[in-house]
Amino acid sequence: MGSAAADALLPLDASRFAAESRAVVDFLEVYYRDIESYPVWPDAEPGHLRTLLPDMPPEDGESVDVILEDVRRHIIPGLTHWQSPNFFAYYPMNASTAGFAGQMLSTGLNVLPFMWAASPAATELEGVVVDWMARLVGLPECFLFSGGGGGVLHGSTCEAVVCTLAAARDRALSNLGHEAILRLVVYASDQSHYTFQKGARIVGIPPSNFRVIPTLAGSAYGLTADSVHEAVKADVADGLVPLYLCTTVGTTGLGAVDPVRDLGEVARQYGMWLHIDAAYAGSALICPEFKDYIDGAELADSVSMNPHKWFLTNMNCCCLWVVSPALLTSALSSNPEYLNNVGGEGAAEVVNYKDWQIALSHPFRAMKLWLVLRRYGVAGMRAYIRRHVDMAKWFETMLEADERFEVVVPRRFSLVTFRLRPRHEGRDDMEALNRKLLVAINGSGRAFMTHFVVDNKFVIRMVVGAAMTEMRHVQDAWELVQDKAKEVQATP
Amino acid sequence: MGSAAADALLPLDASRFAAESRAVVDFLEVYYRDIESYPVWPDAEPGHLRTLLPDMPPEDGESVDVILEDVRRHIIPGLTHWQSPNFFAYYPMNASTAGFAGQMLSTGLNVLPFMWAASPAATELEGVVVDWMARLVGLPECFLFSGGGGGVLHGSTCEAVVCTLAAARDRALSNLGHEAILRLVVYASDQSHYTFQKGARIVGIPPSNFRVIPTLAGSAYGLTADSVHEAVKADVADGLVPLYLCTTVGTTGLGAVDPVRDLGEVARQYGMWLHIDAAYAGSALICPEFKDYIDGAELADSVSMNPHKWFLTNMNCCCLWVVSPALLTSALSSNPEYLNNVGGEGAAEVVNYKDWQIALSHPFRAMKLWLVLRRYGVAGMRAYIRRHVDMAKWFETMLEADERFEVVVPRRFSLVTFRLRPRHEGRDDMEALNRKLLVAINGSGRAFMTHFVVDNKFVIRMVVGAAMTEMRHVQDAWELVQDKAKEVQATP
Repeated sequence: MGSAAADALLPLDASRFAAESRAVVDFLEVYYRDIESYPVWPDAEPGHLRTLLPDMPPEDGESVDVILEDVRRHIIPGLTHWQSPNFFAYYPMNASTAGFAGQMLSTGLNVLPFMWAASPAATELEGVVVDWMARLVGLPECFLFSGGGGGVLHGSTCEAVVCTLAAARDRALSNLGHEAILRLVVYASDQSHYTFQKGARIVGIPPSNFRVIPTLAGSAYGLTADSVHEAVKADVADGLVPLYLCTTVGTTGLGAVDPVRDLGEVARQYGMWLHIDAAYAGSALICPEFKDYIDGAELADSVSMNPHKWFLTNMNCCCLWVVSPALLTSALSSNPEYLNNVGGEGAAEVVNYKDWQIALSHPFRAMKLWLVLRRYGVAGMRAYIRRHVDMAKWFETMLEADERFEVVVPRRFSLVTFRLRPRHEGRDDMEALNRKLLVAINGSGRAFMTHFVVDNKFVIRMVVGAAMTEMRHVQDAWELVQDKAKEVQATP
Repeated sequence: MGSAAADALLPLDASRFAAESRAVVDFLEVYYRDIESYPVWPDAEPGHLRTLLPDMPPEDGESVDVILEDVRRHIIPGLTHWQSPNFFAYYPMNASTAGFAGQMLSTGLNVLPFMWAASPAATELEGVVVDWMARLVGLPECFLFSGGGGGVLHGSTCEAVVCTLAAARDRALSNLGHEAILRLVVYASDQSHYTFQKGARIVGIPPSNFRVIPTLAGSAYGLTADSVHEAVKADVADGLVPLYLCTTVGTTGLGAVDPVRDLGEVARQYGMWLHIDAAYAGSALICPEFKDYIDGAELADSVSMNPHKWFLTNMNCCCLWVVSPALLTSALSSNPEYLNNVGGEGAAEVVNYKDWQIALSHPFRAMKLWLVLRRYGVAGMRAYIRRHVDMAKWFETMLEADERFEVVVPRRFSLVTFRLRPRHEGRDDMEALNRKLLVAINGSGRAFMTHFVVDNKFVIRMVVGAAMTEMRHVQDAWELVQDKAKEVQATP
């Protein structure tokens, strides 16, 4: 495009769209082909990009080729390559051909299912897909639309948590009056994701009313019913109101699992809202061998999991299921005139997703998850998960057979937590040593891992879960860990 | 894919990725070519899709061709076609070739700039792009990173509003103590988007402390400083604490504009947080002829606008700028151990976007907005906006020249509000008549418009803003409106 007149833009001209989109597909094809050759974690300095780019966008439009060349030169070298098969950090953030195809369709159609009438088929597909996922994950019928519950596709767990906290809060305040907001208490473990603390603060719970209950190695860092019970009893004695209990299946740091049934019984006894956060491990629950981890889910009020983590669904997509949609929508609904639909009056019984979430607008995420489920099938997804679990198991076995290392917490899914054993006593030495080991691993560019600290132990986290990871990458990572361990142990 | 083994998935095999992605590009190419032939608003019954789809995903994966055929048969006919050139409803939700390309890159790379270290170039590009947009929109330097402020790309205005409300609330409570949450008051007009009311409720402001201040035809439905001042004085006299004032440039129903400078002065006087919501009209502010509408922006604490509406940036993308990032991050930040970055310690001064938003995770939206700005350029975007404004002006002129119609509120941007004038006195008759007119327009499938109610008037809203809309579509819409008016006036 030369000097830009409006007509020259033709922003959705079909053949121009196709030509430029194909150029991007070609670009990404090369990216995926070459991705192993990039250092997983870039060697970038803060501010490096700003110095390379101008202060203002160009006056006249540029060609897609020029822009893609800049992506290649300026952006790619400064990225952490989350899709690299050698990415073992955080938790995975899966891309896939089907997830990408679904996002393309969603982005291309660019419709908004915020109300049924604003795009009927998009709203309905979301209802179908969340029911599919609920059945796959093994949730009880009460979380399905057919069982009086229902689900929605949010962008993140944090959003799901804020919405459920608001629903729980408003249920409580409708009985107690708004002043009681100062007396509401939220319970989580010291292993819960910080999103619960952030979410509780966002919805106005006093920060001093957030209880972080310690967990212990003896219960594999799962929350015990007794410890929650003690905390709740103390609060009730102080005139406070237990509101919300967070449980996690597969915690962020260590992959720990809270005992859902035991905690559910405590929650029931005190009328608390029980949420199950299965952001990462929810994907594993589609395999029958992991189903016991959500035994007792019928005692929960809400469950969430992120297909954008380990379920081949490109960013972003978080399933939230609730037993009582009415509690959610009464906290989040509104009916301004500009959203009433003339001619859509017969649709009183439909789902309007704007009332299930923070935002009004809501991308057509169902298309993406639908594509993944249909393209890969249930058997394919189970095999995909099991392959990662098996590779993690192999890595754990290698560590266990090597006396230099210890596995810190027994592996449950595809996260292995390990560290170098101390050669000498003293915590400082060990932390420094393992920190040096992690820096050496990541500095090699051949793998990227992150860490966690538990019981004063500096732990290296190695998660198998990137879509491209094969056995040879895990074997390479194990060799890398051994080599770097030798290096750091050799230096004083 | 036949019977699915894990190896057969190859979720990111480069050549398979390219082949299947090209099939989707081809599908969308046909969709855009044929889009004019679809009824804009579908004739769909609630529940229609669920009966067509099975209760469970398939056991084995299916081919992309089979899935695309189902999209064609089952999904497309049930969609409201937001990208149709005959879509004149709500506000637009622009797709474009460049926006799509940017989303493809973001989705394909699938990196997460939630922390600088988690993808340095993606974080930095976001900083560059929000500064570009701030300059384009004409915001004062205090909203730029270089001026001590800064911006972030959220998914929606609602998210931006919740974050700024939380920041304002926590600033107040840090002085007054958490009990004061019961005394905080938020002010908006009866034309403000309901997201403010929803947001205030989400962050725990008592619903009875949300003031909806009436606007009048005499001020073109803009909020007056006097009316706000009166409301604030009354609340202060009652011992309440004025917290947050919402102003809008281009309201949802009528496109009204609040006088930013006058309201900013009231906000300053009482120490209130001032937010400017320019979700739709923010795009027009890139044209110098509209800049006066944000005169006084230096008195605001935050500003938001949605490139996903009228700026050719596919869903979703909302720019939020703040004068004080520290107020935002102190309400939303947290530093759990699993996010500390070994080897990234030198990066203390970097932006970590997880602390600027509700969620931890955060798609690489900057890529999308960067593509749009570079591909179309400043001149191209200005011409694009002006072309829509000119078409809306033409439509308004036609209405004014036809004595059957009245323009209800003078047009400011690309929204025209109109109705049939009464032939007989009496409100019931007029509302019914105009409602019939709107049903007839939308029922034709040839255009889709929505409505609003102001001062008991049922108003039809006609927004020019879809990316494909050309003069001939607006002319067709005008013919359609005239024909349907004749029809409904002829029937008793």
